[in-house]
Amino acid sequence: MEQTVDHDWLVSIRRDLHRRPEPGWCEFYTTARILEELETMGVDDVLVGREMLATDTREAVPDDETLTRWLDRARGTDADRAVLDRLAGGYTGAMATIDRGPGPTVALRVDIDGLPRRESDEPDHVPTAEGFRSVNEGHMHACGHDAHASIGLGVLQALGNTEFDGTLKVLFQPAEERIGGAKPVAQSGHLDDVDALIAVHVGLDHPTGEIVAGIDGFLAITSFEATFEGEGAHAGGHPNRGHNAVQAMATAVQNLYGIPRHEDGTTRINAGKVAGGTASNIVPEDALIEGEVRGETTGLMEYMREEAYRVIEGAGEVHNCRVTIDQGPDAPSARSDQQVVRRVASAGEANDRVENVRRRDELGGSEDATYLLNRVQKQGGIAGYVGIGTDHPGGHHTATFDIDEDSLLIGVEVLSDSLIRLLETVEPGAT
Amino acid sequence: MEQTVDHDWLVSIRRDLHRRPEPGWCEFYTTARILEELETMGVDDVLVGREMLATDTREAVPDDETLTRWLDRARGTDADRAVLDRLAGGYTGAMATIDRGPGPTVALRVDIDGLPRRESDEPDHVPTAEGFRSVNEGHMHACGHDAHASIGLGVLQALGNTEFDGTLKVLFQPAEERIGGAKPVAQSGHLDDVDALIAVHVGLDHPTGEIVAGIDGFLAITSFEATFEGEGAHAGGHPNRGHNAVQAMATAVQNLYGIPRHEDGTTRINAGKVAGGTASNIVPEDALIEGEVRGETTGLMEYMREEAYRVIEGAGEVHNCRVTIDQGPDAPSARSDQQVVRRVASAGEANDRVENVRRRDELGGSEDATYLLNRVQKQGGIAGYVGIGTDHPGGHHTATFDIDEDSLLIGVEVLSDSLIRLLETVEPGAT
Amino acid sequence: MEQTVDHDWLVSIRRDLHRRPEPGWCEFYTTARILEELETMGVDDVLVGREMLATDTREAVPDDETLTRWLDRARGTDADRAVLDRLAGGYTGAMATIDRGPGPTVALRVDIDGLPRRESDEPDHVPTAEGFRSVNEGHMHACGHDAHASIGLGVLQALGNTEFDGTLKVLFQPAEERIGGAKPVAQSGHLDDVDALIAVHVGLDHPTGEIVAGIDGFLAITSFEATFEGEGAHAGGHPNRGHNAVQAMATAVQNLYGIPRHEDGTTRINAGKVAGGTASNIVPEDALIEGEVRGETTGLMEYMREEAYRVIEGAGEVHNCRVTIDQGPDAPSARSDQQVVRRVASAGEANDRVENVRRRDELGGSEDATYLLNRVQKQGGIAGYVGIGTDHPGGHHTATFDIDEDSLLIGVEVLSDSLIRLLETVEPGAT
Amino acid sequence: MEQTVDHDWLVSIRRDLHRRPEPGWCEFYTTARILEELETMGVDDVLVGREMLATDTREAVPDDETLTRWLDRARGTDADRAVLDRLAGGYTGAMATIDRGPGPTVALRVDIDGLPRRESDEPDHVPTAEGFRSVNEGHMHACGHDAHASIGLGVLQALGNTEFDGTLKVLFQPAEERIGGAKPVAQSGHLDDVDALIAVHVGLDHPTGEIVAGIDGFLAITSFEATFEGEGAHAGGHPNRGHNAVQAMATAVQNLYGIPRHEDGTTRINAGKVAGGTASNIVPEDALIEGEVRGETTGLMEYMREEAYRVIEGAGEVHNCRVTIDQGPDAPSARSDQQVVRRVASAGEANDRVENVRRRDELGGSEDATYLLNRVQKQGGIAGYVGIGTDHPGGHHTATFDIDEDSLLIGVEVLSDSLIRLLETVEPGAT
Repeated sequence: MEQTVDHDWLVSIRRDLHRRPEPGWCEFYTTARILEELETMGVDDVLVGREMLATDTREAVPDDETLTRWLDRARGTDADRAVLDRLAGGYTGAMATIDRGPGPTVALRVDIDGLPRRESDEPDHVPTAEGFRSVNEGHMHACGHDAHASIGLGVLQALGNTEFDGTLKVLFQPAEERIGGAKPVAQSGHLDDVDALIAVHVGLDHPTGEIVAGIDGFLAITSFEATFEGEGAHAGGHPNRGHNAVQAMATAVQNLYGIPRHEDGTTRINAGKVAGGTASNIVPEDALIEGEVRGETTGLMEYMREEAYRVIEGAGEVHNCRVTIDQGPDAPSARSDQQVVRRVASAGEANDRVENVRRRDELGGSEDATYLLNRVQKQGGIAGYVGIGTDHPGGHHTATFDIDEDSLLIGVEVLSDSLIRLLETVEPGAT
Repeated sequence: MEQTVDHDWLVSIRRDLHRRPEPGWCEFYTTARILEELETMGVDDVLVGREMLATDTREAVPDDETLTRWLDRARGTDADRAVLDRLAGGYTGAMATIDRGPGPTVALRVDIDGLPRRESDEPDHVPTAEGFRSVNEGHMHACGHDAHASIGLGVLQALGNTEFDGTLKVLFQPAEERIGGAKPVAQSGHLDDVDALIAVHVGLDHPTGEIVAGIDGFLAITSFEATFEGEGAHAGGHPNRGHNAVQAMATAVQNLYGIPRHEDGTTRINAGKVAGGTASNIVPEDALIEGEVRGETTGLMEYMREEAYRVIEGAGEVHNCRVTIDQGPDAPSARSDQQVVRRVASAGEANDRVENVRRRDELGGSEDATYLLNRVQKQGGIAGYVGIGTDHPGGHHTATFDIDEDSLLIGVEVLSDSLIRLLETVEPGAT
Repeated sequence: MEQTVDHDWLVSIRRDLHRRPEPGWCEFYTTARILEELETMGVDDVLVGREMLATDTREAVPDDETLTRWLDRARGTDADRAVLDRLAGGYTGAMATIDRGPGPTVALRVDIDGLPRRESDEPDHVPTAEGFRSVNEGHMHACGHDAHASIGLGVLQALGNTEFDGTLKVLFQPAEERIGGAKPVAQSGHLDDVDALIAVHVGLDHPTGEIVAGIDGFLAITSFEATFEGEGAHAGGHPNRGHNAVQAMATAVQNLYGIPRHEDGTTRINAGKVAGGTASNIVPEDALIEGEVRGETTGLMEYMREEAYRVIEGAGEVHNCRVTIDQGPDAPSARSDQQVVRRVASAGEANDRVENVRRRDELGGSEDATYLLNRVQKQGGIAGYVGIGTDHPGGHHTATFDIDEDSLLIGVEVLSDSLIRLLETVEPGAT
Repeated sequence: MEQTVDHDWLVSIRRDLHRRPEPGWCEFYTTARILEELETMGVDDVLVGREMLATDTREAVPDDETLTRWLDRARGTDADRAVLDRLAGGYTGAMATIDRGPGPTVALRVDIDGLPRRESDEPDHVPTAEGFRSVNEGHMHACGHDAHASIGLGVLQALGNTEFDGTLKVLFQPAEERIGGAKPVAQSGHLDDVDALIAVHVGLDHPTGEIVAGIDGFLAITSFEATFEGEGAHAGGHPNRGHNAVQAMATAVQNLYGIPRHEDGTTRINAGKVAGGTASNIVPEDALIEGEVRGETTGLMEYMREEAYRVIEGAGEVHNCRVTIDQGPDAPSARSDQQVVRRVASAGEANDRVENVRRRDELGGSEDATYLLNRVQKQGGIAGYVGIGTDHPGGHHTATFDIDEDSLLIGVEVLSDSLIRLLETVEPGAT
């Protein structure tokens, strides 16, 4: 496959997105920017927001005030106002289709949201040094979704200039970090005619030049938000009249992390965001924990959830606080099909920039892409999750995460070639 | 002393201020509203913000963003723009003087700030029912400082129409709840010519019609802000790479409340506001505790502070987090002079609306007015802290706190009469 | 009053008892030793164990194995075997009476039990240096009850040689530290004819030569034993199958100490003894907390108890453990009568060895003597709690507690004189 | 191989040992009983205690008082007094040798110690129903070592009556549960001439009739004992003077279980036994934790240990307690050689009583047999760890653990046959 994509163009898109990270369901600028690029390409169809989502199954959507704040922020950029209006209310994301007539349908899924964490401002952090550090203070592309979006556009560019029979769909999915975006895409039915699906992630501790043809070991995941409602009181005058919600929350945190490991396999717990109280001189009346649990299997995830809920309820009782637990979205486990792995491996081996192809690896994390893989597989299609190595100085989700931009072109080339190989070999309409 | 103050006017001011509670150093609307009333009275001098504060000793001033947000909010009201501009940067508060020539100088101190807590929206909460519930959601006059400000204006109104020899100063002090406003007033020197000072508080579990002529038992207090800085990590992929700041914070909270009682007297501890982490899937990198300790004596307060700091440092070590403790403002203890108590008691007994006069009571809480009492007493003057009873359905600092507005006029009358009695009997220039 | 008691004799008894501290209801050697001394004196009647106790109201009696072990240990000394047999089953303590015919009845109460703590073996600890350190390793007279018993014998010796009209009872009470011995004495009725009662304690941070004529401020107290019953499991193979009772216990401990201070006065909490689990490789199945709460009033004690029980129940829920709480004995508050205080103060002032007489002081601790004071007062008698100062290098209940033996004779003299003064002035049969 | 061992004899030995479980290094009765049986067999040599141990490398030996108590208890049985005297001081265990001249040397290792936990007294627990429940209250054969010892004797009996060339050693190892007995055996050199070693365990969730020919997945393990030394004080009078060791311990427990899972594999933590304080009215001065950590690799075990130690140190700082950590014994991981697995599998398949042979399984726990396997493998020999299935109603280390006695004969037959197959095929002197 000949090279048809410009490295500098990929880098410029990635850096532009990197500067403006947006949390899940708030990818207003990001979606508008993607649409702007799509307009210049020869794609046949673009669905946006509501058109591609089973909207009533969106999960973890921020409150209106937050949505409005991010939309206003996007309006303060040069993003197309008409596009932004279509996204209002948090209906973000897009799906672009190239339809070349009869033949199989293949799809690529990339995700586009950022994370709520502050980016490093150290001078040796490349985005800082090169001037594309996040301008949305407190938010950051710390997981490489800026690269994913760029690769998605690059693949459309590459295959737009390539002959094939069949159909290509590229899905720019919102709200992966919130485990919120894949399910409404899956339930929209837009993937139900897909014969082969590839989802992609950069990095994951694999260096530039390495490809993982099939990633498994997705942990099933669910999140929760627990609130503790006690009783406020003057901390100096009437300490005994309060029911201290922060003490309840602290008791829960201490014991959530103490849920025993399970003999059957990997489990995870995190109380990732907590808050409580309003002022140093008031006995805290309210507190909350936003947390998550994971398990190597759905059963292990459920074990953790059950334990976690009991811990939280008990902690409330200890401090006489009412407890409410809002169960958040969850995502199942999944497995890459060998037919996909073989094609991706072949594409990797055929690429001069690729130095090492690993057939299989374990993620040890979670991804709501599993909803999409499972959906395609259930309909009779095949699916795989592919890793594109990239040197990254800081770990995923840390302040110094960054990618090696040389990996962008590798990603575009290997994925384009993989999709072509699937288009050429997969039986259409098996679904 | 004849009645010269209108009840409805007092109520209307109180309700207006109640609707717009502002936290310490952000009393922009409040100060402007007070100045607006002062303009209509015959006061001889009004100092505002910087003019009455030793500005370099202000403590617990919010960050610029917060100050700007509150100032902007005040600009959205009908408050005088020119006045607001003078207050910018958090230089709030005012001092009004009536100067009638030779004679003693007496002063009344009222405080004007609100608390960061949400006001009840239950229909049986009078401010809700009568339409003057806080419009600054999440903030509330839950300690009656709206009443204090109204009483201060009422006293100026009453004595402005009364003959006396000497000088009256009424201090509208900012940032009492932050223990931040009294010290810069004390150090400004504006009270150094005061022969007799009265500070006032409504409520304190005393019913309408009861007066406490001298309150003692102020707990010495100090506040602190502790931050825990750990290491972020992907909660699913690399939980072991994180240093969990929320676990450190929870460990600290659990053990702060566990600091032993002291054989020598009353102590208090509160971790009144906590927060940590950014998202459920990131091992929390940062956390903080805003807390306070109190003691019946300064020594007991220092015992609590020393214990608290060690607990916090140790909790950081447990979870490998760097700990920073910013020591906040503190306030000493104080005692009401018998000469003041006697005059206030006499004024109370002479007032028909007063049903019961208590000579002395213990506060069991803290107040930065102690800085002012101590300052005046150190210069040779006398000082006292007076309680004006008011029926209040909810406790101080709770969501249902409210006052009985009948107590406003009682407060104005008793305090005006007390100040007149002091003006008539205190030896001027004793200081 | 002339001196009739030998200092060396007092010291030798005190040291002998100090060497053999015995916990509550196990004072076998101690009681036998007291009886041995009583035999040589001219007392008219001696009641032992069952004869002076309402046996069905004994509280906190150790299990049979413990009772037997201590009885066997006493049998290994030169204590009288026949006496020991009478005490078997934990029926310890004695009451000696001198009956001189018509006149009032006065009583002195001393307690005789030791504490379960290891005595210091440092060379500068006098009992170590002088060879009378506890031979019952892990047990210690760390609260001076060895001195109390000696003083009780000394008073009998002194008054046995003094003329008076009326009756003297000296009560050697068991199990004070367990809050277990006073109630069965009170309910036995043996104090119901007492016109005036004195209870005594040495030390309490008062130096040798100081007398406190009336101690008040007894904290109401109650104790509890909480057990957590979880589920054991192999810690390596099946950690998830366990319900960890030690985690539940630790959660309870953390939060028990975190029960808020009370605005109405002094409170106390202690989880004084805990245990759990059997081996490092078994998930702990069982755990227990022996604790206590105290309050300045019975209401405050009950507040603490209620809070404590809820904390413990909640902690059990957090870790899925069954919780059982056995409520232990309690003791009320009490107050010394002024008529007693006056006589003791006079006796103190008349004594050459006494350098300072304090009329009143606060204990700030608890004592089951309050049962006896309350009983006598309820029957119409008068009662007081007296402090005999003694220099003590270590605090009460610590490993280096010791008394200044010069205080023994002071105690005997002042108490004997106080009792004589009561005998001479109290109206008999007022009860 | 023909059957030469009597089922009833095996059962009677197992039940006799079951009645008298003894903890590690205290297997006095157990060792004596084994020696008694060995005397009746045609073994050529028996080493006991010191003769088979590198005595200076024994770990986790109980204190003298405990050793003496258990020795005295054994003396109260019909065990041979002369044998017991040889074992005094905790030099337990034995090694029996059958030497048939030139040929390879093969060895079987069984362990013989019990666990410190109370055995169920429910009527449906077979040892209770059939009268062989533990008479050593609080101790129990809850891991099947009674069966192991019986099987070891059975194998000696079976092979004593079988012809072979070479040498058989059967090692009755003490103190496996304490991770204390294998290392001194390994370092004694007595296994250095062994060409093939089998270690055995019953149960492990495999039913009667199932054989696991090679068990891997041993978790590396280490234990620790942490002591917290604070300051005692009277809990009522001087709570602030104490440094509460129980609060420190509870803080440590809460946070030990909260050490994060590791991305690289399985980890374990247990605070299996804790204690602290002496009485409800003394602020606890001392506390301890006996705990352990495990890891899928030695590195993971070390990660856990490092985290645990920091947690413990920090918890001490929180409560101003001195911390001492005694590092206990550890054991590495290990792997079964395929050559051993093949022979055991063949023996299993050849046995009529065996219904299912699994080639390999993971233990997911720890075993100090890994020291022996590693030692033999390092010297050039081969080694394997074999599972003999047995229905067990309760899990290992729980109060209702029991074995199906039918598995005893299966174990004897399969292991005897496996050892014969090794004797016939292994090259002697490879070491």
